[in-house]
Amino acid sequence: MRANNIKEIWRSGGVAVNAWASIPSSYAAEVLSHQGFDSVTVDLQHGMIGFDSAVAMFQAISSTPAVPFARVARNDLALVNQLLDAGVYGLICPMVSTVEDGRAFARACRYPPAGNRSFGPARGALYGGSDYFQHANSEIVALAMIETAEGLENLEGIVATEGLDGIYVGPNDLCLALGVAPQAESEEPVVKDAIARIVDACRAAGKAAGIFCSSGEAAAMRADQGFTMVTPGNDAMLLSRAARTEAARARGTDGVRGTRTGY
Amino acid sequence: MRANNIKEIWRSGGVAVNAWASIPSSYAAEVLSHQGFDSVTVDLQHGMIGFDSAVAMFQAISSTPAVPFARVARNDLALVNQLLDAGVYGLICPMVSTVEDGRAFARACRYPPAGNRSFGPARGALYGGSDYFQHANSEIVALAMIETAEGLENLEGIVATEGLDGIYVGPNDLCLALGVAPQAESEEPVVKDAIARIVDACRAAGKAAGIFCSSGEAAAMRADQGFTMVTPGNDAMLLSRAARTEAARARGTDGVRGTRTGY
Amino acid sequence: MRANNIKEIWRSGGVAVNAWASIPSSYAAEVLSHQGFDSVTVDLQHGMIGFDSAVAMFQAISSTPAVPFARVARNDLALVNQLLDAGVYGLICPMVSTVEDGRAFARACRYPPAGNRSFGPARGALYGGSDYFQHANSEIVALAMIETAEGLENLEGIVATEGLDGIYVGPNDLCLALGVAPQAESEEPVVKDAIARIVDACRAAGKAAGIFCSSGEAAAMRADQGFTMVTPGNDAMLLSRAARTEAARARGTDGVRGTRTGY
Amino acid sequence: MRANNIKEIWRSGGVAVNAWASIPSSYAAEVLSHQGFDSVTVDLQHGMIGFDSAVAMFQAISSTPAVPFARVARNDLALVNQLLDAGVYGLICPMVSTVEDGRAFARACRYPPAGNRSFGPARGALYGGSDYFQHANSEIVALAMIETAEGLENLEGIVATEGLDGIYVGPNDLCLALGVAPQAESEEPVVKDAIARIVDACRAAGKAAGIFCSSGEAAAMRADQGFTMVTPGNDAMLLSRAARTEAARARGTDGVRGTRTGY
Amino acid sequence: MRANNIKEIWRSGGVAVNAWASIPSSYAAEVLSHQGFDSVTVDLQHGMIGFDSAVAMFQAISSTPAVPFARVARNDLALVNQLLDAGVYGLICPMVSTVEDGRAFARACRYPPAGNRSFGPARGALYGGSDYFQHANSEIVALAMIETAEGLENLEGIVATEGLDGIYVGPNDLCLALGVAPQAESEEPVVKDAIARIVDACRAAGKAAGIFCSSGEAAAMRADQGFTMVTPGNDAMLLSRAARTEAARARGTDGVRGTRTGY
Amino acid sequence: MRANNIKEIWRSGGVAVNAWASIPSSYAAEVLSHQGFDSVTVDLQHGMIGFDSAVAMFQAISSTPAVPFARVARNDLALVNQLLDAGVYGLICPMVSTVEDGRAFARACRYPPAGNRSFGPARGALYGGSDYFQHANSEIVALAMIETAEGLENLEGIVATEGLDGIYVGPNDLCLALGVAPQAESEEPVVKDAIARIVDACRAAGKAAGIFCSSGEAAAMRADQGFTMVTPGNDAMLLSRAARTEAARARGTDGVRGTRTGY
Repeated sequence: MRANNIKEIWRSGGVAVNAWASIPSSYAAEVLSHQGFDSVTVDLQHGMIGFDSAVAMFQAISSTPAVPFARVARNDLALVNQLLDAGVYGLICPMVSTVEDGRAFARACRYPPAGNRSFGPARGALYGGSDYFQHANSEIVALAMIETAEGLENLEGIVATEGLDGIYVGPNDLCLALGVAPQAESEEPVVKDAIARIVDACRAAGKAAGIFCSSGEAAAMRADQGFTMVTPGNDAMLLSRAARTEAARARGTDGVRGTRTGY
Repeated sequence: MRANNIKEIWRSGGVAVNAWASIPSSYAAEVLSHQGFDSVTVDLQHGMIGFDSAVAMFQAISSTPAVPFARVARNDLALVNQLLDAGVYGLICPMVSTVEDGRAFARACRYPPAGNRSFGPARGALYGGSDYFQHANSEIVALAMIETAEGLENLEGIVATEGLDGIYVGPNDLCLALGVAPQAESEEPVVKDAIARIVDACRAAGKAAGIFCSSGEAAAMRADQGFTMVTPGNDAMLLSRAARTEAARARGTDGVRGTRTGY
Repeated sequence: MRANNIKEIWRSGGVAVNAWASIPSSYAAEVLSHQGFDSVTVDLQHGMIGFDSAVAMFQAISSTPAVPFARVARNDLALVNQLLDAGVYGLICPMVSTVEDGRAFARACRYPPAGNRSFGPARGALYGGSDYFQHANSEIVALAMIETAEGLENLEGIVATEGLDGIYVGPNDLCLALGVAPQAESEEPVVKDAIARIVDACRAAGKAAGIFCSSGEAAAMRADQGFTMVTPGNDAMLLSRAARTEAARARGTDGVRGTRTGY
Repeated sequence: MRANNIKEIWRSGGVAVNAWASIPSSYAAEVLSHQGFDSVTVDLQHGMIGFDSAVAMFQAISSTPAVPFARVARNDLALVNQLLDAGVYGLICPMVSTVEDGRAFARACRYPPAGNRSFGPARGALYGGSDYFQHANSEIVALAMIETAEGLENLEGIVATEGLDGIYVGPNDLCLALGVAPQAESEEPVVKDAIARIVDACRAAGKAAGIFCSSGEAAAMRADQGFTMVTPGNDAMLLSRAARTEAARARGTDGVRGTRTGY
Repeated sequence: MRANNIKEIWRSGGVAVNAWASIPSSYAAEVLSHQGFDSVTVDLQHGMIGFDSAVAMFQAISSTPAVPFARVARNDLALVNQLLDAGVYGLICPMVSTVEDGRAFARACRYPPAGNRSFGPARGALYGGSDYFQHANSEIVALAMIETAEGLENLEGIVATEGLDGIYVGPNDLCLALGVAPQAESEEPVVKDAIARIVDACRAAGKAAGIFCSSGEAAAMRADQGFTMVTPGNDAMLLSRAARTEAARARGTDGVRGTRTGY
Repeated sequence: MRANNIKEIWRSGGVAVNAWASIPSSYAAEVLSHQGFDSVTVDLQHGMIGFDSAVAMFQAISSTPAVPFARVARNDLALVNQLLDAGVYGLICPMVSTVEDGRAFARACRYPPAGNRSFGPARGALYGGSDYFQHANSEIVALAMIETAEGLENLEGIVATEGLDGIYVGPNDLCLALGVAPQAESEEPVVKDAIARIVDACRAAGKAAGIFCSSGEAAAMRADQGFTMVTPGNDAMLLSRAARTEAARARGTDGVRGTRTGY
């Protein structure tokens, strides 16, 4: 089976730089995957992406050096299995609030007896190779998102779950869970403390710690904090910021060219 | 009929800032269209976009203040008509090399007796309104691309073509036509001269002059040169540059995080 | 944030006329949305529409004055969130049978602390505006369907649920729940009584009351009964009836032209 | 090879009632195809339909008793062949203005030596049967559109073209060609005369005569005039009229319900 | 309502030969459906197929003599209803482990009072006919998959469930459940015994017994064992094996042509 | 730029084994591309594939060792350029009948001054690398199809065309051109002679000679004849034959199981 480069990065003490795809387009995914990321995560929770679009995106990512990941919409055996069968090498599951949640997700990612994944690795075996079944349980990465108050309470138990490779922080939902305004790099002490607790728990348990960030600079800061997977924004954010900047520059510093106003 | 804002910008002496879409995704097109552009051009020549994808992109652009434009793959009555029927308010035609080419394109954009556009404005009348037929000939913008040696030779004749609203420069093909390396803002005198000739011819004829640029800064420079429609890069360029920059920043200034190299 | 016109209609005592889309086509949705409806509901329960098709439909509706609504396939946090993130301004949830069901649905539509919606309003913020998060909880409409016997029993409790804007009646399933043949405007007393009870309960609680109807005439009758959102058939019904009528008319009153029989 | 029911209708002296599909949706096409039409024409000229959408539409039509037809975007061997390979049993070609145009179109529809169709009837042989090649030349219907002034001049020659089964009138373009406002059932004498000439020419030559109409009533009138294929409107017209009617009825005769105005 | 040919085969004591579609393409499904199968099952569990792709596949199958079936991703009322509304005449549900699971699935397939299917048979009524509602409960086939240890324990209870037409064996997951390597025709006694028990239980209860097989030969063997629905591999397996064989043959017996090695 | 493996095979005197894709599915293309072919040709002439489907197919092929090729629908600059921009490394053009045809096609594949390809290698540069422009003219393979009587007459001139890498034989159309029944491996002397002439002409000119075959065995025979690119059937043929065989085997040698007959 093709090795999972993300696991190799972690084994060697490195930090994986991950892209985040919310645009339902295999071409946009391919463009993204060629820009120097270690992995590209197709977001089926908040992205505008259903399963029919996601398959071609995984194929596009597979044509590049980046490792295909996905965020599943929900902690659900059938959805998790569909994405794994479609060839992702890493799965991120939102809203893991209890040890039971974490265990259910981890088991959904593993074939028996380690879990209850159903057999039928259609594209997985194409991308991974004909010995996919023999190695999938150890090569596939499973990351649980801690982003609820209950999830924070159960942090240590979730981190310790067998079959989970680590935690991925959704900072915006975490802010909401902690009663503050959603912001990727919130300066609220309650958020900073929670994030520090998560990194510490992961490090103590020898697990990976990933987080969504609003920029490359923020991602570098998170890497300095100990995160081992950092995501410097998503495709729509990158595209909209770049487009807005260039459109404004096209109008000149005085912004008086053209007639468009009021955005 | 809904007025064509690009024509209003030109009437008031403004410069239209135009986006360029090559990603076959209505969501990417919608993201782009909200960033302050006056128009968004869906590229069916070099973009990864067929007619089936383009229709949803025009709809997405129509949900924003930007005016929907398209570049047609070829100077062909049927293709031009399909895009107009799909509701674009401006068309850019590549490789117009002769006065006959220009006239054929202009006529394809106009209903008889001004031209030979066939009747059936399916989405055009939805977007434009029920009086679409009465006003389409005067509201739709038609821009011919000058990008061949022959086109340059016939510049004045093409510019003067009735029914053409102006010229759009494809600087890369123009470079190739002039025997130099393709570069959007080439410093080669032969290219600079040709571009200056085009702007002058358009201004003299009271026609619009548009051009593709590699950045917002370059677009502002072109506007200063007298261009009245400037395109600061396309979506794939904007996305790839932004992604590459943020991925690199995520790795830190020393670039030593992670294991990915060699892009 | 762009205001929700449906809420304004209700505040001013009006009746919203709603279209129902079951055809997975953004063009059909756009055609429908231009015909004078206040809202257009994309049906992901009984329509032939998955999430990948729905996104472009929401974009098409957004290019018209109609407000984008959706019926979700199931009372599920992840599915509800996906549709809200895709920019709908109203959600209709089938099979709400208990107060718990109603509360779960209402909470899925609201950000904390009012609910447990997850943060990531991708297209929502494009359509709604950059202040989407600040106003989404109050602008988004949530309607629970009462269409089971248990739902009828718990009617008052469901209607009273905080965060629910009203009830939407599925008359066919309601008929089945009451043991009679499914019919949108059933004359069975048990159905008429149940529907009257629902309208009364909504009016008493100051909540909206919507219902699916088989025609415009039936919709006007329901509006007279006190319903504040009426849906005069779905797109496939409208298209098939119109097509059947015109095909028959084309054959003439004697119907003897052509050789086709036996439909 | 499965017989072409349209040819059988014509042989028995009947009039074929044809539907017209402009919505790029296989479900809309299937709905349409079940309403009593003898054929359904997928419009790749003015419809919002590219080849990728059309294939599934032909499949949907093939699941019903209606015969799959298409209007090709242009008189072009490659486009004609693609649609035939996709299984259509009838092709309508726009803008046939000369005998050469007619002959080129007819030959594009026929295998050598009768024409120059290229071999590769992928879906054609699935739908038609394994002996498709042996019978395709005689089963496939080819109709040339007369809708330009030049086409009218060459009417008799075009009608006489070997391999053409008849003429299909595009009344809107014909109006434009004749210098009058486009209207499907124009009362302008010049248009009425032209249409009468076409029917007469077809009848004299023993060829079919088809025409696009704005309603079933108009179609019946055209059948009375001698047309042997009549099309009572297209899907978008049928859907929009029905929707507009029902929306208005839902508002009641006084039209005062709701707040939406100004469409 | 159009009769369900699979039920007729079973009534007459025959064995249904079923195809299995995992490729998200209506054309591939149509090709498959013309090769002599009694039914074609679209796999939404392990196939690369979401609902948006599946609808066109059902249409394509409906244009052939094969009966459209589907495997649903999960035992879920909403998903089951969506597929039935899309016109499938048979549903296969994975991971039925308890009598409650079986009952929930069976009820999801039946309208009240026999079950809790929601009303709205959009494509079902197109394919089945206008009296679909009257006959759907008796024409639709519901098959529960036994493929877990718990399912085996509860075999007799599940088989006896009212509304279930039979069992479908997933031999790979059954192997995993029994602690042996997944193999469609495993020779492990524990697997062979389990499969024999299932066939016996079905025969005793007068229910259908289906199974996935790796080839036509294996399918014939299963039919000899008493299975009444056999599936000789899926489309991707058939295509890959045939392609691999022909590619190898093209290289000749010595395999030395070309430079490709190492697959 | 990524090297073109097909050119390397030819330089080393090998025979390229090529797959042929007519199913519009990136998953089917990916399955095909993993079976040991040197290249996979996406057929936009007789395949059921438009540009929108083709792009994802090229991406899928790019995730495997196979080299992406395409057959263009027509000898047309715009269509040829679109496919090259989409990243194909080889193009096959049908119906090349004259030296002018061949020269036009060859020039469409090459940037100036060697040809008139327009600049904008969107996906080409992603797949090929950032130095795509510098090497594309020499890496891209252009093959002209000889399949008309006129093409045969002009064989030597076409073969000698600068910029053409070789000839690809369409044996079915060649049969039709020669007045015999279409058959991939026709035994008609006139066909055999023509094919021998083509191979000889290619060999004499040091150009590649490709041909479509009906099986791997036939492909091996063609390789023995001197062809340097052989295509053992297309995907739909491979799938249908394999499916038909396995369905028949499932019914047993006596074929009496089941009730389906008459295919």
